[in-house]
Amino acid sequence: MTERNPGERPLEVIPLGGMGEIGKNMFAYRYENEIMVVDGGLAFPDAHMLGIDLLIPRIDYLQQNAGLLKGWILTHGHEDHIGALPYILPRLPKVPVYGAPLTLGLLREKLAEFGIGADDVDLREVDTDARVRIGRHFTVDFFRMTHSIPDNCGYVLHTPVGKVVHTGDFKLDQHPTDGKTSHLAKIAQAGADGVLLLISDSTNAERTGHTISEAEVAQNIDKIVANAKGRVFLTTFASHIHRIQNVIAIAEKYGRRVVMEGRSMVKYAQVAQDLGYLDFKDPLITTDDLGDLQDSQVLFICTGSQGQPMSVLSRLAFGTHSRLSLTRGDTVILSSSPIPGNEEAVNTVVNRLYEIGVDVFYPPTYRVHASGHGSQEELKMVLNLAQPKFFLPWHGEPRHQINHARLAQAMPTPPRRTVIARNGDVIRVSPNDFRVSGTVPSGAVYVDGLGVGDISDDIISDRMSMSTDGVLILTAVLHPTPHVELVSRGFVKSNRDLEQSIQRVALEAVEEGLRGKKRTEDVRDDMYGSVRRFVRKVTGRNPVLIPVLVE
Amino acid sequence: MTERNPGERPLEVIPLGGMGEIGKNMFAYRYENEIMVVDGGLAFPDAHMLGIDLLIPRIDYLQQNAGLLKGWILTHGHEDHIGALPYILPRLPKVPVYGAPLTLGLLREKLAEFGIGADDVDLREVDTDARVRIGRHFTVDFFRMTHSIPDNCGYVLHTPVGKVVHTGDFKLDQHPTDGKTSHLAKIAQAGADGVLLLISDSTNAERTGHTISEAEVAQNIDKIVANAKGRVFLTTFASHIHRIQNVIAIAEKYGRRVVMEGRSMVKYAQVAQDLGYLDFKDPLITTDDLGDLQDSQVLFICTGSQGQPMSVLSRLAFGTHSRLSLTRGDTVILSSSPIPGNEEAVNTVVNRLYEIGVDVFYPPTYRVHASGHGSQEELKMVLNLAQPKFFLPWHGEPRHQINHARLAQAMPTPPRRTVIARNGDVIRVSPNDFRVSGTVPSGAVYVDGLGVGDISDDIISDRMSMSTDGVLILTAVLHPTPHVELVSRGFVKSNRDLEQSIQRVALEAVEEGLRGKKRTEDVRDDMYGSVRRFVRKVTGRNPVLIPVLVE
Repeated sequence: MTERNPGERPLEVIPLGGMGEIGKNMFAYRYENEIMVVDGGLAFPDAHMLGIDLLIPRIDYLQQNAGLLKGWILTHGHEDHIGALPYILPRLPKVPVYGAPLTLGLLREKLAEFGIGADDVDLREVDTDARVRIGRHFTVDFFRMTHSIPDNCGYVLHTPVGKVVHTGDFKLDQHPTDGKTSHLAKIAQAGADGVLLLISDSTNAERTGHTISEAEVAQNIDKIVANAKGRVFLTTFASHIHRIQNVIAIAEKYGRRVVMEGRSMVKYAQVAQDLGYLDFKDPLITTDDLGDLQDSQVLFICTGSQGQPMSVLSRLAFGTHSRLSLTRGDTVILSSSPIPGNEEAVNTVVNRLYEIGVDVFYPPTYRVHASGHGSQEELKMVLNLAQPKFFLPWHGEPRHQINHARLAQAMPTPPRRTVIARNGDVIRVSPNDFRVSGTVPSGAVYVDGLGVGDISDDIISDRMSMSTDGVLILTAVLHPTPHVELVSRGFVKSNRDLEQSIQRVALEAVEEGLRGKKRTEDVRDDMYGSVRRFVRKVTGRNPVLIPVLVE
Repeated sequence: MTERNPGERPLEVIPLGGMGEIGKNMFAYRYENEIMVVDGGLAFPDAHMLGIDLLIPRIDYLQQNAGLLKGWILTHGHEDHIGALPYILPRLPKVPVYGAPLTLGLLREKLAEFGIGADDVDLREVDTDARVRIGRHFTVDFFRMTHSIPDNCGYVLHTPVGKVVHTGDFKLDQHPTDGKTSHLAKIAQAGADGVLLLISDSTNAERTGHTISEAEVAQNIDKIVANAKGRVFLTTFASHIHRIQNVIAIAEKYGRRVVMEGRSMVKYAQVAQDLGYLDFKDPLITTDDLGDLQDSQVLFICTGSQGQPMSVLSRLAFGTHSRLSLTRGDTVILSSSPIPGNEEAVNTVVNRLYEIGVDVFYPPTYRVHASGHGSQEELKMVLNLAQPKFFLPWHGEPRHQINHARLAQAMPTPPRRTVIARNGDVIRVSPNDFRVSGTVPSGAVYVDGLGVGDISDDIISDRMSMSTDGVLILTAVLHPTPHVELVSRGFVKSNRDLEQSIQRVALEAVEEGLRGKKRTEDVRDDMYGSVRRFVRKVTGRNPVLIPVLVE
């Protein structure tokens, strides 16, 4: 190395999740022999990832460089930012993990569920305006940003090559529930001093205008509750503490006791309450404590915003809740929008609610939900404040990243260079250079049941085949007299003629093989091929065929 | 019966599909011993109907009353109105089937694919303003309504009890492509004379305002094509002949030859062209005829509006088309919106197009598509013109039906009674009565591969189980020395320890059964139960277990 000026050595930004996708957010920054990590989130599977519960980022790069790991910071407590940590933290050295009180409160709860104790990790609570040093090269200057959960942060990262501003997830809500607006002063100050790289939230880069405020959502819910005569049931994301706070205030205003229903709703409320993030006059109760409260004196906050089959709202909609049932005169508010993939499930719940005859309110027909992510005008505001030299649109699929890049390019002072990156890219940043210089292993590890990483794409592919045409098991007993047994699942209705024909085709192949003294595996292959062709011809289907030979 | 006045005997309206759902539209009207049928459409399966290709209405009621069938009318040529007829018509007596030229043209094409010849059916072409008599009691007075396919009709049905107005699928487009606006005069005249029952399209009952016109969509596409420098690729529904006509005119305006790509696109265009529904200067060509045309001289109209894996647009997006590949500088227009359930597939295609670097336009970000169904202002217009005594909101899920009912209730002269019906309801209508008086068998028959009705809910349920956790086949050979073979598909990655443990658990159960001289089926049940509990405990999974015992 002839270079001696530290500013000339590049910083590497390595997204391990959340780049080119929405979900499983995770970043690594590397400068020389020090690595700092940001977040560790999970993602939910696509419809074709059959049977998979969730996805977590691959961390091969961190495992291979475990000795360089100096610290970890967390931006906020959503699942797509901290949900993978119970799987990841135990596989890496114990380093300081910095996060705001609610973020760490939710993480502790999650770690405890996995049997990971306080001594196994090094969690360090900081406030949303803190400054922390990680290793010799990184100084993190947190700043508060409004989002759909309290204690949400972005940060200015001071590095030897210059300042990186990372917005974290954000919207610019001018009327947040807790009165704490985004701390834009730090972005503005960094902009004035000179920002080398801006990393910004692209989720709503295709939406014009501003995202509506939590205050407007609260006003709309207030009107609905004011007019409601019977019970009110409201569902939202359990982590949406601000929304829940507003709903509690509205309930109190109209003399309704708040009833929390559903495991995750109770859990998040408990953590928020313990840490002082929820303010109420009367204690929150459960269905057990209803006593002689009238219908007009209760408001239920319940799980089910995504139409999950076992959630409270779904059980209410389908009449399978053990202690509550909806009736005409009740009001149901879905203060949430379906995450892509859940549209059908939510739609089914909404239709059932209409059929029951309750009054039901949901977006976009009613403005009872707001996104946690800023629209184009908010993204432009941040671009103008930061005035970055380089720009990395993050937290989005290619459509969002590229539209965000176009917004940036149309600013009065556009960035000098924008990179549309993917997970696993090693993005080199130095004062005069910004480009993808290589890749590290990336992608998703499947979590299914108790297993982490024991499901491969082949297995998913078998599940896909069985899900469309079922499975057909042919057990050929070769001796003393060859015969074939047939068992199927998910194929077609029991059909004697078809079964006998298949058995005959299989047996012919077996007998011919035995006469020709073929090897067992060849007999099996012959039987497999004959039955496959026959089934395809007479049924038009391709079930997964499993030949079992017993000698 | 003491009643003698024919007006006192009720008309029965029996929806066999399309009521409480969007799809597989089919109606029966019965008066005394005469039945008339409207449409016979198919529906696409929900995500949980694994492996099912399509759904058709159950027709038990029509089969049980086959002798009463007097005639059939078709409102238009969309799949959800005529797609089930090749399955249904051969199972019922041959009666006159009335439809407009394009509707019958598309139906003939479809019947031919199923080997159903001209002599097997009695198709009778009528124009969109025709009046036909069916049986002794029904007179059908068709009227044209604008929609997303030409030759679309509603009708006034004159019956002994009074007039029924059925809008068919509609929007009120003031600037339709062919200049033929909705023939509202017939609805208005019926309204003036007195309408007993209005049956109206509820699809967009939750949307305020007016649905945008085809003319506006054409203007927006025109601007995009005007600015395009390279090739233009546009996808839309193959049946959307008006949209395709507009795109052809735009291509001609800018000196681009129109290339049709994809089987269904070519087929629909051929039928429309043969019947005189498409107007163009230069013949439509295929990719074979490109010759030395420059990129700026071609516009492709191709399949793939729903992100279907084998469609032209998907193959272009994923780089698997044999003769065409997209490059930076090309323009792609998705002049269509995803049908519910297809959002993820379309989103994936859009992201790939962005990654390739083409300019891509799609709704709602760009106004390059309009719904074929009217919004609230259009629905209100029809309610005001028809002034019905009774109202039956149709072509919608409960949420759409109920919001449509609320619109009607808020009209200056609301209907006296509205019924929210479901498939299979027998709705009695007479001058002073309108109610559900009973039910007939209804629901869906599953079509899968070559099979119609050979898939049951049990089979779907097995497919569902296998799709999430796979299948595990235990073959126990009882003699001479008991042993157990294990085969799995879609379960977990090959894992020697786990396999051996499962075999051991299974073998122990078998050996104990044999020692206790249990019956074979009891041995099987013991093995099943032991393995099931063991697998659930160590893997957290519930694969479909199939025990096979060989003696």
